[in-house]
Amino acid sequence: MSIQFDSINLGSSMVGPKHGLDPAEVQAAQAKAFDALEGFRASFDQGRYGFPALPSRSAVQRQILACAAAMKGTYDTVCVVGIGGSALGAWALDCGLRGPHPVQAAHSSANPRLVILDNVDPEFMQQALASMNPARTVVVPIAKSGSTAETMATFLVVDEWMKQALGAKKASARTIAVTSEGRGDLKAFATANGLTAFHIPENVGGRFSVLSPVGLVPAALAGLDVKAVCRGAASMTQQSWAADLSTNVALRSALYHYLILSLRKKTIQVAFPYSNRLWGMAFWFRQLWAESLGKANNRKGRTIFAGQTPVAALGATDQHSQVQLYMEGPNDKVFSFWATDRWNTPGAIPKAKANFESFDYLAGQSLGKLIDAERNATAAALTAANRPNCTYSLGRIDAAHLGAFIQMLEFQTAFMGELMDIDAFDQPGVEQGKVFTFGLMKRPGYEAYAEAYKAYEKKRSRN
Amino acid sequence: MSIQFDSINLGSSMVGPKHGLDPAEVQAAQAKAFDALEGFRASFDQGRYGFPALPSRSAVQRQILACAAAMKGTYDTVCVVGIGGSALGAWALDCGLRGPHPVQAAHSSANPRLVILDNVDPEFMQQALASMNPARTVVVPIAKSGSTAETMATFLVVDEWMKQALGAKKASARTIAVTSEGRGDLKAFATANGLTAFHIPENVGGRFSVLSPVGLVPAALAGLDVKAVCRGAASMTQQSWAADLSTNVALRSALYHYLILSLRKKTIQVAFPYSNRLWGMAFWFRQLWAESLGKANNRKGRTIFAGQTPVAALGATDQHSQVQLYMEGPNDKVFSFWATDRWNTPGAIPKAKANFESFDYLAGQSLGKLIDAERNATAAALTAANRPNCTYSLGRIDAAHLGAFIQMLEFQTAFMGELMDIDAFDQPGVEQGKVFTFGLMKRPGYEAYAEAYKAYEKKRSRN
Repeated sequence: MSIQFDSINLGSSMVGPKHGLDPAEVQAAQAKAFDALEGFRASFDQGRYGFPALPSRSAVQRQILACAAAMKGTYDTVCVVGIGGSALGAWALDCGLRGPHPVQAAHSSANPRLVILDNVDPEFMQQALASMNPARTVVVPIAKSGSTAETMATFLVVDEWMKQALGAKKASARTIAVTSEGRGDLKAFATANGLTAFHIPENVGGRFSVLSPVGLVPAALAGLDVKAVCRGAASMTQQSWAADLSTNVALRSALYHYLILSLRKKTIQVAFPYSNRLWGMAFWFRQLWAESLGKANNRKGRTIFAGQTPVAALGATDQHSQVQLYMEGPNDKVFSFWATDRWNTPGAIPKAKANFESFDYLAGQSLGKLIDAERNATAAALTAANRPNCTYSLGRIDAAHLGAFIQMLEFQTAFMGELMDIDAFDQPGVEQGKVFTFGLMKRPGYEAYAEAYKAYEKKRSRN
Repeated sequence: MSIQFDSINLGSSMVGPKHGLDPAEVQAAQAKAFDALEGFRASFDQGRYGFPALPSRSAVQRQILACAAAMKGTYDTVCVVGIGGSALGAWALDCGLRGPHPVQAAHSSANPRLVILDNVDPEFMQQALASMNPARTVVVPIAKSGSTAETMATFLVVDEWMKQALGAKKASARTIAVTSEGRGDLKAFATANGLTAFHIPENVGGRFSVLSPVGLVPAALAGLDVKAVCRGAASMTQQSWAADLSTNVALRSALYHYLILSLRKKTIQVAFPYSNRLWGMAFWFRQLWAESLGKANNRKGRTIFAGQTPVAALGATDQHSQVQLYMEGPNDKVFSFWATDRWNTPGAIPKAKANFESFDYLAGQSLGKLIDAERNATAAALTAANRPNCTYSLGRIDAAHLGAFIQMLEFQTAFMGELMDIDAFDQPGVEQGKVFTFGLMKRPGYEAYAEAYKAYEKKRSRN
């Protein structure tokens, strides 16, 4: 299991002193990195944050696998009802291990698909229901608070659809709730309806929860190798506590990203996987990075409007969509290539010549070689244009490496929060939109926000 | 057919003078907008750019529809082989009219699916081939130059796979090329193999080509309503030539985006559709905006590193992923909500109360109402945080509106190029990566780039 981080193209010798880091700057900041490690370790030891321990909670993992084993064969679709951190981890794992949707193998009870209802678009919902058979579906509502409006609304629709078709008892037997243990209406609903429930540790937030039941229940039901994912992640946890920048990839990459953001003002990070299987992971990372680091105030209470905007780009595809901007637009980005050292299949290009110059040089080579060449060529071109870039390499794309990469990115984010002196684990900024929504939907107790919204509309009407 | 643009929340009275536009600034810039209209009109009249005329090329559209009608029933999969502008338009139309992939209705010869091979990832390719039946597949290689490395490599693999299964003659009868008329190896290949071919006008570039055969051939083969798409777009062409800011949505929105970028330095535009059907369109737009406006030099040859980084976010989903950053991170963004006035289905939430407070206020309402409330709440919250935002509203999400919206966004981009005084129609920045790739893949004539790449690797090794 190997995750490497190549920072060479972040250096001033490669992209110039205006956009790259001087080795002396990196050297001078090393003490800060070790402080970050210590700071986060102390919080962990106090029990404030639980994600580092998730991969080694083998008892829970066994319960989840036993639950999936008991239901195996009775469903061809796992319908996840969740949004944000309650949806993206399952997608990242599914896409990573079985490929993106349009080309996934046909689903069956031997190969159940995931349908993730992570939006309240009524047309999307209608189509999703039409595509599923209630008698062959397991429903997994996921909400830590147990009161997320989108998730509750979607679950009400899906639950009714199940009950209409199967009756209340059978529907409940096919519904598995993932929520907080001691609180929230989803938990109360689960208890009242006799649902199987798995619990999210209180010290694990949504975007750090993929290796809790939030990600593992859907993954296990879909037949993914949950054990290997956790094994890879556990090994990375160990690696990430080491006070050694040469082996601690999460700490080293956090340091580089911190410096390139704070000293060189690269306010955008392009997560640039060269693999369709890593596309879901890029969207999972987008939440992790945006929601953790986008903070108005630092831990001293000073207003700093911190953060780095994550952008997901897919290589080689987006070379034909975004790279023009990346090469010639504002030099406000750092690029993180995500690569695999080894392809599970080479993708041989036929040997026969077509007698056309644009085809024939490719004959007998492979798609794997081509996509690697595209990535290397793009890194070289960006470097020549003084655009700082770095590369994360996975030994290969399999369950253990995905688990390790997930855990590395979570540690990196936690360290980044320490380096930026912000709280990487809260999300106060989403509150305002939530309460306006509750007001507009007439939730009791939110009348004042309905009034505030009216005042906003009135102000708009004067323009 | 109605496309509206609401710019109120871009104004200083809503988001403050530091981040919003003063009415006097907008007023003062109107003359510039009319200059942009005239400038682009002059270029169009000289025949330099062809996209405005595409929707009214009814003879070509008839040929495409006739071709699709002749093949109807003989295939259940349309396999597009193309990348960037040769892939994103077809995806935008398919997603817009039939929904995103995981929930699309099962494919059949009455409802053929699109499989878009827009990457050279060997695992993706292997899965895609495994998911298709060559005897029920139509292959559509698309490349204006006829020599794009990724497209040629992918086509060689797919063509061999078809020929192995069906023999050369039947494979060729199931292959339709879309390329330039008078040049390129894909055209030569098509001629040598007797393929049906449709042609891309020379004055239409990839990202502006969705309403040429590039988008219309896949759309027609998939059974989408190509005529209605073009009808909507043609009506928008007319609207977009009007020297009237109150009716010319493309010109008005270009003006606002130009001012918010140039005067308020909002270097990121978040395209924020509140509809899963518009998700493909957001990625199509991402190329249009990034590749057109991301330019190192202006038309006077001055180096300006211009551009605005487009980000695709999906509402309400990304409220639980990106909105924390949008609310509290750097105020460097302008938000463009994409809304629909009317849902094709309401998404009723069951009336029965569950006797839990977090559920019961939703009972009897609808998902359509909820997602609209989420969008309005998010706009209000961003506005309260002084984050400039605007809203494009489609009357509804159907073929005519999608066509009109596509054409509006293309005109807006062309006007934006005029306002920024850049060439919105070239892409010189992708050349460097291309020639490095050719060098690495040993294409004859590119030996010097292979050497240049070696020098880069040597420099890296000294770090």
